[in-house]
Amino acid sequence: MAGRKALKVYLDLLSQPCRAVLIFLKINKLPHAVEYVALRKGEQRSPEFTKLNPMQKVPVMDDNGFVLTESDAILKYLATTYNVPDHWYPKHPERRARVDEYTAWHHMNTRLHAAKVFIFEVLLPRVTGQPTDAGKVDKALAELEGTLDKLENMFLKRQAFLCGDDISLADLLAICELMQPLGGGRDILKDRPKLLTWKSRVQSALSDSFDDAHSVLYRLRDKAKL
Amino acid sequence: MAGRKALKVYLDLLSQPCRAVLIFLKINKLPHAVEYVALRKGEQRSPEFTKLNPMQKVPVMDDNGFVLTESDAILKYLATTYNVPDHWYPKHPERRARVDEYTAWHHMNTRLHAAKVFIFEVLLPRVTGQPTDAGKVDKALAELEGTLDKLENMFLKRQAFLCGDDISLADLLAICELMQPLGGGRDILKDRPKLLTWKSRVQSALSDSFDDAHSVLYRLRDKAKL
Repeated sequence: MAGRKALKVYLDLLSQPCRAVLIFLKINKLPHAVEYVALRKGEQRSPEFTKLNPMQKVPVMDDNGFVLTESDAILKYLATTYNVPDHWYPKHPERRARVDEYTAWHHMNTRLHAAKVFIFEVLLPRVTGQPTDAGKVDKALAELEGTLDKLENMFLKRQAFLCGDDISLADLLAICELMQPLGGGRDILKDRPKLLTWKSRVQSALSDSFDDAHSVLYRLRDKAKL
Repeated sequence: MAGRKALKVYLDLLSQPCRAVLIFLKINKLPHAVEYVALRKGEQRSPEFTKLNPMQKVPVMDDNGFVLTESDAILKYLATTYNVPDHWYPKHPERRARVDEYTAWHHMNTRLHAAKVFIFEVLLPRVTGQPTDAGKVDKALAELEGTLDKLENMFLKRQAFLCGDDISLADLLAICELMQPLGGGRDILKDRPKLLTWKSRVQSALSDSFDDAHSVLYRLRDKAKL
């Protein structure tokens, strides 16, 4: 079809893993088309989108007819099939295994705990019109602190980035999750010098693509009164 | 060192992902040594084990000094560095992406929901001496049903195994999780003909290694009175 882009992604920029996918495409200058799917309007439940992804979730990638879900898988697919610098997902088996180790750990830790804080402080109050029970928020914050401790004391113990001395898919997925509570006005990294230094390194490696992908979250933050 | 095996794994066979690692090693005849870490005795918190894995979790792999955690990463590392059939983790980018897609989805779905049922029906009652609140168990069971629906209607919709027409790491990780509630006497697949057929296929592909790895769980099942 004339003008059709071969690589297309379906995203909502308030979704953390969607931002990771967009940043990856932009920083690596991979030609792509974006179709936005507004989760707040329930567009992920439309018949067209459900046909594309019966899970009714974003992100979704369509690479010339090959439809793939799950940000983790999408990023690894893009990193291995397109011509991007090796540091994102190293070919060397041991270095690649480090990235796989972090991304496996990520789901039930960084992602789960940072997302919960955002859900409790921003999403649920919107839906119910009531603030979330303080005990629940405190528990979620305590669990998140445990995850931040592990990021600092284990993954970043002796290295500049989560899986070595250069940025990888791990850092990209992690930073997008750790930014999320900012949507409720909460900067979870502010008293964490080690994570803040890491964040500066990540942000500097991602250049403008980082702020571009986070512009919607920044607008939410600016309206938040915590 | 004389007699030292190059590849060593640290496992507890009541841990689902540990069984997946052991089955993979056995079915592929990879020479290895196993050191058992009894979670029920808290051996994962010993100083020696904590030095090996500060997360204090099993499985852990030590391949000639390269220490790796997270079953997902361990299996992918073994499948790509050792000489095993391609179907486990295909080299073809699109087929590999399908395995990565499932394994990413697995953590917050198959693993989370099947593990919760086991925790509520077996582990918590042991620790507290009381049955878990029925409402909590019912909620966990309902969430698990949702996951089983997705396994049947999405992943297995048009194919014999979760990621295609042959067994992969995805099936191995999934079956070990779906077996776990059996430890409390609950067979979650019994009214699911499609999943039962899939289970037979998986079990047949895994041969004796499947029952060997599940012997501890079978003993627990035989003692369970649900």
